Amino acid sequence: MTAAITIKTTNQTELIDITGQTERVLKEKGIQDGLCCIFVPHTTAGITINEGADPGVQTDILAVLNEVIPFRFPYRHAEGNSPAHIKASIMGSSVKVIVESGKFLLGTWQSIFFCEFDGPRTRKVYVKVIGT
Amino acid sequence: MTAAITIKTTNQTELIDITGQTERVLKEKGIQDGLCCIFVPHTTAGITINEGADPGVQTDILAVLNEVIPFRFPYRHAEGNSPAHIKASIMGSSVKVIVESGKFLLGTWQSIFFCEFDGPRTRKVYVKVIGT
Amino acid sequence: MTAAITIKTTNQTELIDITGQTERVLKEKGIQDGLCCIFVPHTTAGITINEGADPGVQTDILAVLNEVIPFRFPYRHAEGNSPAHIKASIMGSSVKVIVESGKFLLGTWQSIFFCEFDGPRTRKVYVKVIGT
Repeated sequence: MTAAITIKTTNQTELIDITGQTERVLKEKGIQDGLCCIFVPHTTAGITINEGADPGVQTDILAVLNEVIPFRFPYRHAEGNSPAHIKASIMGSSVKVIVESGKFLLGTWQSIFFCEFDGPRTRKVYVKVIGT
Repeated sequence: MTAAITIKTTNQTELIDITGQTERVLKEKGIQDGLCCIFVPHTTAGITINEGADPGVQTDILAVLNEVIPFRFPYRHAEGNSPAHIKASIMGSSVKVIVESGKFLLGTWQSIFFCEFDGPRTRKVYVKVIGT
Repeated sequence: MTAAITIKTTNQTELIDITGQTERVLKEKGIQDGLCCIFVPHTTAGITINEGADPGVQTDILAVLNEVIPFRFPYRHAEGNSPAHIKASIMGSSVKVIVESGKFLLGTWQSIFFCEFDGPRTRKVYVKVIGT
């Protein structure tokens, strides 16, 4: 079965480290070896893997995305959150992580980040593990 | 086995909702639980998951990509479709969707979009389902 | 088990075709049918699938990324490699390729590229194959 995680975001655009929460799901499943898919069922939020040590990296990723994808533009979508939809597609709706010995096989500096682009909101993330 | 879907695009840049076509493959396979990989075997087209309700979202995603990735630039690739190659890499060559009870576990507003960046052309998409 | 490939990059930003190296792993595993996940365990490098025939495409992808994601910006991350972190998230940390008859089911023009954004460095890529 697929596990669901709930995330409460507090800003309009924000990166939230969900490595611990998703790895907990993995341990509950007890799968030792396989592939994990972490999926965002929203269209104004995304997911990415990047550096978790210095929060400055998260700030810089958001700052440049918010600069390159204009908040003001002759957008057609009346809800006013088109920049969030565009950033969601650029970051992507899922990440895949290899599972080895019951743990995520991540690099030393890698963390998994939920990317809020139209917050604050209460969000969900699905975690699915496929064993080999 | 892998299923192939054929798509005929009608514009140079265009987003086409392929959720129904890909979900039909899933039903034919009869897999109840697993992970589905939808893969684009082209280098000037991509795939993304985003809002399917308001077509304005699709228009806005394309408009901003076409604005940010310049059509005019000192490109080296002689075929003249470098912007299409770049957008293909930004959107990505595949999406992964969780399969539960024989259906895609998508969010309320999510649809799967084939992203044409160098059309009009006849295109293919591969659908592979891994059961658990 | 997961295989690891070592890559030595020679420039600050660079695309390196790793299709042959990753396909060799596939043959060693002997898996005929399934899904392959190629994962980059770094935060200033990414991975993408794009055209392998004309090296001009690789040049153009890098040129536009290096133009759109500014090298000079009021970045907070003190290491000075924030543009590399941002490009890594835009390209993504993994690609998925369908495996059929013991081979990658890639399009005619598709190659798998390791994306160096903060080189030159010695890098790793993980290859995981899930059989059906």
